[in-house]
Amino acid sequence: MAFDELSIIDRYLRPLAGEGSFHLMDDAARLDVPADADLVVTADMVAADIHFLATDPPDTIARKALRVNLSDLAAKGAKPSAYVMSLGISEEADEAWLRSFTQGLKADQAQYGIGLLGGDTISVRRGPVVSITAFGYAPKGRMVHRFGGRPGDELFVSGTIGAGTVGLAVLRSERGPWDALPASLREAFVQRYRVPEPRTALAAAIAEFASAAMDISDGLVGDCDKLAGASRCSASIDAEQVPYPDGIAGTADSSVLARLLTGGDDYEVLAAVPPAGRQGFEAAARRAGVAVVHIGNLTDATNPPEVLFRGKPMDLKSRSYVHGGEVG
Amino acid sequence: MAFDELSIIDRYLRPLAGEGSFHLMDDAARLDVPADADLVVTADMVAADIHFLATDPPDTIARKALRVNLSDLAAKGAKPSAYVMSLGISEEADEAWLRSFTQGLKADQAQYGIGLLGGDTISVRRGPVVSITAFGYAPKGRMVHRFGGRPGDELFVSGTIGAGTVGLAVLRSERGPWDALPASLREAFVQRYRVPEPRTALAAAIAEFASAAMDISDGLVGDCDKLAGASRCSASIDAEQVPYPDGIAGTADSSVLARLLTGGDDYEVLAAVPPAGRQGFEAAARRAGVAVVHIGNLTDATNPPEVLFRGKPMDLKSRSYVHGGEVG
Repeated sequence: MAFDELSIIDRYLRPLAGEGSFHLMDDAARLDVPADADLVVTADMVAADIHFLATDPPDTIARKALRVNLSDLAAKGAKPSAYVMSLGISEEADEAWLRSFTQGLKADQAQYGIGLLGGDTISVRRGPVVSITAFGYAPKGRMVHRFGGRPGDELFVSGTIGAGTVGLAVLRSERGPWDALPASLREAFVQRYRVPEPRTALAAAIAEFASAAMDISDGLVGDCDKLAGASRCSASIDAEQVPYPDGIAGTADSSVLARLLTGGDDYEVLAAVPPAGRQGFEAAARRAGVAVVHIGNLTDATNPPEVLFRGKPMDLKSRSYVHGGEVG
Repeated sequence: MAFDELSIIDRYLRPLAGEGSFHLMDDAARLDVPADADLVVTADMVAADIHFLATDPPDTIARKALRVNLSDLAAKGAKPSAYVMSLGISEEADEAWLRSFTQGLKADQAQYGIGLLGGDTISVRRGPVVSITAFGYAPKGRMVHRFGGRPGDELFVSGTIGAGTVGLAVLRSERGPWDALPASLREAFVQRYRVPEPRTALAAAIAEFASAAMDISDGLVGDCDKLAGASRCSASIDAEQVPYPDGIAGTADSSVLARLLTGGDDYEVLAAVPPAGRQGFEAAARRAGVAVVHIGNLTDATNPPEVLFRGKPMDLKSRSYVHGGEVG
């Protein structure tokens, strides 16, 4: 297909244009920040065969590209407001691809109450590559960071850990306990790999109660190391307390659990909550309709970080997942 | 090279971290907007062999990626403040490449007084691809748009038109009047293609005097069509008034001029200024040290847009340049 940016904007992107975008008729947007809010900015880029498979349904590629950003905002205590998108496409992006891709964005814009502010659409030699910068508002002075946690703070995770890793394993036809699951459940894991669930509903509870938080994109264990390190703490996680997805939790031996704990694409929130705020946080999460589970604690920095299973340190070959790490 | 995002951040990106970036130790940044300013947001993505050549010096790739965004801000009347960058790299991006690339950013950050807020570094199958979202401040209520021009407004361009087009032609060894130029002048055109000159110094004059403005990235004629269209006007340009670069202006016949007028990569400003503001705009541009030249006018929308040469309409095969358009 001949590349025609103006036609792509007219046909597919203009219906997504939000407030401040000037209907995508200008070279830049204007973002009006409420006086009682901190403007939180995050950027994530996803590329074919690194963060998604080039053959994935285009609407899921779009939603993943957007949602990994919304996940970051939620973990900072921020409600999303708008985003800009730069999209690099090559020949695979025909009209049907673009229609599906932008329908995915449209559905998520409605779900999260956000609009497209602007961006760029370019031809690349190998695509797709989707770069999104997302904007959100945290209550003034209440943006939550990786740093800020203290020894003794309780560690919580939202949702379940490992579904994205299982979904990718199913897509790649890797053997594992998921082979014994019903096809519908395997498909649910694939769907979860393709379309994460950012914990936007939890943002207010995080802003009110968390001393530190981040979203889990590269494996719970390695990301917990990062949060603890930024907070000048260590951490202790009890692998038996971690919430694993239905269908896997019961069948999993410790080597599978290790994989779930260190695999990528969870896009759940890891939050440190001071003990005095624990009850308030749990109640706020309940009201928000997001399951949160206590999995361990921040500890004094003189301890090595540890992941315990049946009271003993787990054998973890690696602590983090590297997207595209296997292709150099 | 094995892809290691954390090492890249530590070694190359952290020295670029600006205010609100939390030393790139967090998942998101905070942007504090002055009360007397409009926050202007723009995003541009550049990719190898589309917007730059993969073999270009890495520092020039970085500077081009940044400067095409600063150029948009300037044309909106905004001074740049910060940017986020998502960088997709593949095997070509070794340590030397990354060092040069980030040195280019560092030099431009110092020149324009801006800092890196955050972003993402990923592995891609074919790179580099650089996506930048840049932020700037316009005086409150004074952001300038493509729309807003009126029939009779005077059209001005900054700098010269066509240097980027000539630079790319030299790089591609295409024949033309530039073959007769001294090597140093040909090299200056190449440098200009690789490293545009955003007209940041002109931003205040644009905010004060322009009714509409945009940066010229896809050819003066086509971009003028866009500004006029967004302003519900038509336009008339006198090709003999357009400022061409030294060395080309005198040697150029009308077919070469047509190419300069419709080629890409100028990154100059096209501004519409109401007649009453013309003297003030010219004086403000002079004080800013940026040459601006009157090239025509916005006209009533009932006229077709026209480019005159010696009093007659020029024969233009196309009106815009499409980056990567030739590769589909």
